Amino acid sequence: MRASLHYLIAARRCEITELQQLLHSSALVRQLAVLVHVLQKERGLSNIVLASGGAQGLAALHQQHQACDSAISRLQALLERLDMAALHGGHGARLFNHLAYALQGLDALYGLRRCVSQLSLDADACTAAYMRLVAGLLAVVFETADSASQPGISRLLVAMFHCMQGKELAGQERATGAAAFAAGQCSTARQQHWLQLIDAQERCLQVFADCAPEAVCAAWQATESQCPAQATLERLRRIACTAAAGSPLDTEQGPAWFDACSTRLDGLHTIEMQLADALEQRCHSLLHSAERALAQPESLLQAPVPEPADPAGAALPAFFRCPEPVHPRAQGSPLVQTGMGTGLAPQLEQSMLDLVQEQAQRLQAMHTELRRARNALTERKTLERAKSLLMTHRHLSESEAHKLLRQTAMNQNRRLLEVAEAVLSMAELLPAPACSAGLNPSKA
Amino acid sequence: MRASLHYLIAARRCEITELQQLLHSSALVRQLAVLVHVLQKERGLSNIVLASGGAQGLAALHQQHQACDSAISRLQALLERLDMAALHGGHGARLFNHLAYALQGLDALYGLRRCVSQLSLDADACTAAYMRLVAGLLAVVFETADSASQPGISRLLVAMFHCMQGKELAGQERATGAAAFAAGQCSTARQQHWLQLIDAQERCLQVFADCAPEAVCAAWQATESQCPAQATLERLRRIACTAAAGSPLDTEQGPAWFDACSTRLDGLHTIEMQLADALEQRCHSLLHSAERALAQPESLLQAPVPEPADPAGAALPAFFRCPEPVHPRAQGSPLVQTGMGTGLAPQLEQSMLDLVQEQAQRLQAMHTELRRARNALTERKTLERAKSLLMTHRHLSESEAHKLLRQTAMNQNRRLLEVAEAVLSMAELLPAPACSAGLNPSKA
Repeated sequence: MRASLHYLIAARRCEITELQQLLHSSALVRQLAVLVHVLQKERGLSNIVLASGGAQGLAALHQQHQACDSAISRLQALLERLDMAALHGGHGARLFNHLAYALQGLDALYGLRRCVSQLSLDADACTAAYMRLVAGLLAVVFETADSASQPGISRLLVAMFHCMQGKELAGQERATGAAAFAAGQCSTARQQHWLQLIDAQERCLQVFADCAPEAVCAAWQATESQCPAQATLERLRRIACTAAAGSPLDTEQGPAWFDACSTRLDGLHTIEMQLADALEQRCHSLLHSAERALAQPESLLQAPVPEPADPAGAALPAFFRCPEPVHPRAQGSPLVQTGMGTGLAPQLEQSMLDLVQEQAQRLQAMHTELRRARNALTERKTLERAKSLLMTHRHLSESEAHKLLRQTAMNQNRRLLEVAEAVLSMAELLPAPACSAGLNPSKA
Repeated sequence: MRASLHYLIAARRCEITELQQLLHSSALVRQLAVLVHVLQKERGLSNIVLASGGAQGLAALHQQHQACDSAISRLQALLERLDMAALHGGHGARLFNHLAYALQGLDALYGLRRCVSQLSLDADACTAAYMRLVAGLLAVVFETADSASQPGISRLLVAMFHCMQGKELAGQERATGAAAFAAGQCSTARQQHWLQLIDAQERCLQVFADCAPEAVCAAWQATESQCPAQATLERLRRIACTAAAGSPLDTEQGPAWFDACSTRLDGLHTIEMQLADALEQRCHSLLHSAERALAQPESLLQAPVPEPADPAGAALPAFFRCPEPVHPRAQGSPLVQTGMGTGLAPQLEQSMLDLVQEQAQRLQAMHTELRRARNALTERKTLERAKSLLMTHRHLSESEAHKLLRQTAMNQNRRLLEVAEAVLSMAELLPAPACSAGLNPSKA
């Protein structure tokens, strides 16, 4: 009885430990959102410097470097407070590996800035380099969302990841449009890329809207609908994306485009900060509930040990009379129907069983809910895996692999996700790539 | 660079920590298999005592009680050495909750034994009570298999769970047959139940055979094909399950049935112990590889810090020139094509990037492999969830829910799993059950 209670309490403590961990992860995610935002600004200013051959934007860029450096320092300070021992297994390994990559990128930022200041790369290369840095930071947010096992928190993290990813696509759109207006024309290839960025952005923001709390969604819709920059943005999108190939674009519109996009990015950043607030509040309130819930079994632990039941009674213990808790049993093994004992078990055993039962049902419900919250992430992972499989086995570039999936889906009138799943199930028939040898399983 | 290496090493340490944890879990699973085996014997002997009105088997039963008690003590000793702080989040909570339930059952075992010794319950009720105890212990093995994030280990644990579950169904079959031969006839309902037990057993052992190492599979097939008890078993199965309703069964065959089944259970237990050996060996060998792999980044950590690249060079750092590692990016955001720098980055940065890249690919491959290894568990969980949903919302018993699923699958000519999945996706339209209120998420 004591040992059993001990584990019941340990089960609740597991949730508390994870919530404390999630509270810290939320602070980390907030800081990542801040850092990505200042990096996106740095990318925009770097492009202005490069496009103007160093004639414009240098002072603003230097100021932005300082803002970035201080965001990096704050991130490092938070990382130093990360309880690394509290993370392990596959998720810990993946999270730390993403952190290693992201920090590697931040180390390389100084080299990138030197290239910009010496004008030794063009705007496209500069955009690509910053995109890679941001992608590394976003991967950390993705992994955090994917590893949280509290469904309410996971849902908010899924919203946060998609808001950040949508905003990053909006940032890429800013760069694409700026390059087009600067060039004074928009090639068909650039128009297609631009339309893809708008499309991908909208899909991200749809997932964000599906997962974010209503108040945050409402704030976002208010920003989008009331902002005059939004109208400018849509007008310039239309002009550039519908212009006939080779026809001239008004280069004077460049600054207006850049400003409208920047206003939009700032708006999305405000939403990110609201999501970060919601995340922290949710962690605090779940922690509070979990700590209260812990008091229940702990009070049982204080109760006096009951005398063993009178041997003359010989009633079956309550354990064998209660409905069984939810757990995976044999498929197709109906329970033997029994008409067992009637005597009342000691009150304590009953309360204990109720607690275990209640907890089992709650954990089960959370697990189901979590699967739903992570759906959007799973879809993204499936698509990425299918793409990377095609890249490896058919020697395609990423965008070719993506096009192939899209085209197949259209031809077969199926969802993109279904096609990706079909590709992955086909993969079981292909030889494993060499990289998976190391620690990978094989029949021994 | 240093910080980045630090996380790369932390990622590898995560795997080592988990492997150490898995080594301990393997010992726990072995001891659970031992305990279930002696409990199954105790169930068989208890039934003999009850069926004979206390005339037979009492001495053997008392001896078996002692064997059980010592297996329980060994389990408790192992549990005391369990590093509870190393388990957390959803899996930790579920594992501890299953342990709380299982230990609650072991506490109640003494009350059950009193009922048997006072002959105050019948053989069916006794079988059902022991089944519940065993189901509680099996749920711990299931959760262990479901939480391991090393695919090779997960696969062995999946094999172990299905071997144990198949053996438990074989034990239930022994009890069902023994009751039929003791009664001297076999009702249609009992025949159906019996056939279901054979069917479920074979499905479990098929999954075991799919996941177990070849040597263990071969040992199992040798046991099944060379054992004379197997022929007796099949003959008696045929006689009892094809007998016309109400026609007499030869009660003299009872002991032969019981012995043939017991030989089969002992054979399966030998296989379980071989699986436990394979599990421990696999943990040791993976630990060894992981520790060797750790030496690689650690040697990088010893390397001298390189001078910052010559500012006059202004080549893009290697980070921006290597292929990107595998991680979830925007759907449909093709990479901007770049034709960036050619200068060689410092050797150290390159090695570091290679390590991160290699690790990312390995983690990705493991994740995919793990999903495959867990497939059998996911199917089981889906079926259980669908059943429990039908039980709650349509007020059915477990066997009614199971029958409904089977019947629907037959009528619609679909797989049982597909029907279960359809039931669960329908569930999103139903109101959430009250039990999931507590810590459960809602739009805030």
